[in-house]
Amino acid sequence: MTKDVVDQGSFSSKDYHDPPPAAFIDVKELTTWSFYRAVIAEFIATLLFLYITVLTVIGYKSQINKGDDPCGGVGVLGIAWAFGGMIFVLVYCTAGISGGHINPAVTFGLFLARKVSLPRAIMFMVAQCLGAICGVALVKAFHKTYYDTYGGGANELAQGYNKGTGLGAEIIGTFVLVYTVFSAIDPKRNARDSHVPVLAPLPIGFAVFMVHLATIPITGTGINPARSLGAAVVYNKEKAWDDQWIFWVGPFTGAAIAAFYHQFILRAGAVKALGSFRSSSTHV
Amino acid sequence: MTKDVVDQGSFSSKDYHDPPPAAFIDVKELTTWSFYRAVIAEFIATLLFLYITVLTVIGYKSQINKGDDPCGGVGVLGIAWAFGGMIFVLVYCTAGISGGHINPAVTFGLFLARKVSLPRAIMFMVAQCLGAICGVALVKAFHKTYYDTYGGGANELAQGYNKGTGLGAEIIGTFVLVYTVFSAIDPKRNARDSHVPVLAPLPIGFAVFMVHLATIPITGTGINPARSLGAAVVYNKEKAWDDQWIFWVGPFTGAAIAAFYHQFILRAGAVKALGSFRSSSTHV
Amino acid sequence: MTKDVVDQGSFSSKDYHDPPPAAFIDVKELTTWSFYRAVIAEFIATLLFLYITVLTVIGYKSQINKGDDPCGGVGVLGIAWAFGGMIFVLVYCTAGISGGHINPAVTFGLFLARKVSLPRAIMFMVAQCLGAICGVALVKAFHKTYYDTYGGGANELAQGYNKGTGLGAEIIGTFVLVYTVFSAIDPKRNARDSHVPVLAPLPIGFAVFMVHLATIPITGTGINPARSLGAAVVYNKEKAWDDQWIFWVGPFTGAAIAAFYHQFILRAGAVKALGSFRSSSTHV
Amino acid sequence: MTKDVVDQGSFSSKDYHDPPPAAFIDVKELTTWSFYRAVIAEFIATLLFLYITVLTVIGYKSQINKGDDPCGGVGVLGIAWAFGGMIFVLVYCTAGISGGHINPAVTFGLFLARKVSLPRAIMFMVAQCLGAICGVALVKAFHKTYYDTYGGGANELAQGYNKGTGLGAEIIGTFVLVYTVFSAIDPKRNARDSHVPVLAPLPIGFAVFMVHLATIPITGTGINPARSLGAAVVYNKEKAWDDQWIFWVGPFTGAAIAAFYHQFILRAGAVKALGSFRSSSTHV
Repeated sequence: MTKDVVDQGSFSSKDYHDPPPAAFIDVKELTTWSFYRAVIAEFIATLLFLYITVLTVIGYKSQINKGDDPCGGVGVLGIAWAFGGMIFVLVYCTAGISGGHINPAVTFGLFLARKVSLPRAIMFMVAQCLGAICGVALVKAFHKTYYDTYGGGANELAQGYNKGTGLGAEIIGTFVLVYTVFSAIDPKRNARDSHVPVLAPLPIGFAVFMVHLATIPITGTGINPARSLGAAVVYNKEKAWDDQWIFWVGPFTGAAIAAFYHQFILRAGAVKALGSFRSSSTHV
Repeated sequence: MTKDVVDQGSFSSKDYHDPPPAAFIDVKELTTWSFYRAVIAEFIATLLFLYITVLTVIGYKSQINKGDDPCGGVGVLGIAWAFGGMIFVLVYCTAGISGGHINPAVTFGLFLARKVSLPRAIMFMVAQCLGAICGVALVKAFHKTYYDTYGGGANELAQGYNKGTGLGAEIIGTFVLVYTVFSAIDPKRNARDSHVPVLAPLPIGFAVFMVHLATIPITGTGINPARSLGAAVVYNKEKAWDDQWIFWVGPFTGAAIAAFYHQFILRAGAVKALGSFRSSSTHV
Repeated sequence: MTKDVVDQGSFSSKDYHDPPPAAFIDVKELTTWSFYRAVIAEFIATLLFLYITVLTVIGYKSQINKGDDPCGGVGVLGIAWAFGGMIFVLVYCTAGISGGHINPAVTFGLFLARKVSLPRAIMFMVAQCLGAICGVALVKAFHKTYYDTYGGGANELAQGYNKGTGLGAEIIGTFVLVYTVFSAIDPKRNARDSHVPVLAPLPIGFAVFMVHLATIPITGTGINPARSLGAAVVYNKEKAWDDQWIFWVGPFTGAAIAAFYHQFILRAGAVKALGSFRSSSTHV
Repeated sequence: MTKDVVDQGSFSSKDYHDPPPAAFIDVKELTTWSFYRAVIAEFIATLLFLYITVLTVIGYKSQINKGDDPCGGVGVLGIAWAFGGMIFVLVYCTAGISGGHINPAVTFGLFLARKVSLPRAIMFMVAQCLGAICGVALVKAFHKTYYDTYGGGANELAQGYNKGTGLGAEIIGTFVLVYTVFSAIDPKRNARDSHVPVLAPLPIGFAVFMVHLATIPITGTGINPARSLGAAVVYNKEKAWDDQWIFWVGPFTGAAIAAFYHQFILRAGAVKALGSFRSSSTHV
């Protein structure tokens, strides 16, 4: 038996068990402190996420307009780092408390895959949206003069792009993020490759970083409805509200496709249902 | 029994024990070499931290003013990397010797949570402040002509921000840092997720990187009283001293809030005291 | 016996077994769902890779030409991050499904080293090329006006460099990438240093990042024939097709040299064959 | 006994054994293939290191002088990433073959600490210097017209700094690097914190990245005599040769101080010799 332990290091093929799907509604859950603690952690994490990132956006724009140094700010690269890096830090910090969603689209994808119950999903989304609003409000309080001048960190379609492009960019961007999240938490991989969870928060953060590099010129990059809502509520300009639906429909659609792709294609759920192929668990 | 070992890989829920709180005053500690070695390690680490980061700040400003290449320097993004990256490297190097504080606010937060004794906390803070002064002094020695011209790496409120904003930025910024530190060293997570400590120095470094991206335009980013004091002592201009209190009150307040948040909300200390909720350790 | 487990942590020298070479043609493989799942995963991953990276390239170029902010884009550094970071994320996501090649040159190198069978290698390359074409086509659909104006993300020799230089840059660049891949999956190192696979996707992503920093000014950096083909098909300009052979001959040559270097020099295959040196497995 | 294994995860204090010091001269070593393989690996790694990094330097300078995009290059930040990132990748790739020095100063520090024998140290340094020359020669072959114009990647004191400053910058910079290397390979930490080696190549790469951010404006950053020699040989201008001694005396001095600091202060070698303090291994 001890031999098994030694073999573990060398990628032995090994059985794994899916955890049972989360109950649709789990009343018992509502009486535990760990449930409310998780909701609080999501609220604080989303607050900090929006505070740091929108502060970076406003600070950057205020600096390049002071004129003495045209390259004085952190640049779009710095803004992309702020979003991706904060997700890395906050997923790391809250993974053990709430699972580290910090994003209603992630919560929605995990709900579809039956990883979280309905009340938990709803409470998380409410906490995330409230946290986002508070985070952006803090930035406005700190940057009174600059906040409105520099766009308030709100997501809007850039000039020259139509709504279809914006929606497509949000769908694919969120797909990249939620696909990475599913890959990181896949129990099959946890069982087989003991190394996978080690890096979980880092590739999730990098996925956010990458999507921002690519789509900041198009939509400012939402892929997180709480982030888009928080900025729209505090900024409260017409354009931000007109485009708001894109930043809800897009991320939720992308998350649903990622959940489908992971559960039915990669985990062979469809095949198991059809029973037509032999699923060989020994191939890596 | 060996089976337990195999299960370890697959996130079994497992009991954990909080280490006993550090003694308030531990006389025996003062007679060990490991205590003085830790103080020396904090001194050297803070010296190297200030040396590399302030050198980056001064070198960047001197280069963009040479005129031949407006984008010639590392930029604010490079400065933020210097602070975050050095914390990553130095926490990695000193974690096994002193715990890798390199920051009086971190030491203060850990003291409040009873992770370090009072004499150790005081000696660490003294070592950190002396190390910071020596590190900045080295930069001044190397960059005689440029050092004073380019602000000496001192933390000052930028024009257009009031003291309340600066204080708030320091409080929240230090909260992000100390919250990440507490998450990284939480014994509950160490017991359950064997992967968490693997990345400990990296998210701590990233937290510092993120806060610098966000608040360099406001205060230059302190979140480390030793860093602010060291630069003020060597630079020694009135403005740097006038704002100095912000960089002590802010970080210590932020660290205290983070210690409270972690110990009483996330670790359910308050609830345990009240005894009103069932704390379920099986929920992740 | 349990003692062995404890020793594992302290780098005990230990036997390891090479997995048997993959069958040249494995008919049974073609009847498993995991084979087709792997092909699908390679298709989707290469699609996402090209979508994010080419979108970053076009978005950057469109932004710096809007004139209001000369440093407004993510820069060449941001483009290099996009390529390297996406490889990190996608290798992380697909490593457990398909091995995470996302690059015909990597597949070719692993085929030469007998890590994948011939049908698998061919199917992977076809899936990668189709995925790349679809990814770039998406970018063109999103960025109609800008796509052709800003070069379509196609690989071309920059002015002032001859074809020999371009070919050499592609060969050495791909050597760096495939050498890193072989180092990451070496069974000898997996057995001895349990830490090596933990970081596997990260250094592979960094290798791609590094090569882009160095060779974007010369060829735009291919080191991935699917990436070069996909952009050429969608962009479809004469210059991109004229130089296309460089981005196939170069990467395949570099991958072959890396496979040879790893198998015959580092793994001492040549020496074992000659039987002239004592190979000591106890030296690290 | 199995209990011990479980406890390992929770930072139990545990005995460790220093490996015996390497023999000063080990004749048997010279007859093993693994010795020559390590020398070859150092040669190839240093060649790739100089090739990628100097290509980045020259490509950056050629691009910002084309005039159409003043921020078109990767910037000093990109150059610092190239140096740090390549060290990360190459230490990762060669750690299991040669120990991953890629730098005569690192080899010298490890020789002083009796981690490598004298013949191995000499052969490594020769291989590193030859590899560096070949790497830079490749860049010159690729970039004929630009190579000489843009300084050849050679290390020279920048205007306005005296030789003492340059020497000091090299000493402290190499201290940071070699201190990180010693921290990463410390057998005491390997035994106690199973997580430390996991990240070893990453903080080493970051240390190089940090030092480049800070000292590129002063000396161009050597901290690696092979890198400085290789560029000087291929560039072959008077100034590069005049300052060459700084890039040998500085790094070797810094490495010696780091070896002394680690062996005598942090590992309490001095104290053990004096026998005056109780060294308590239970304090972390």
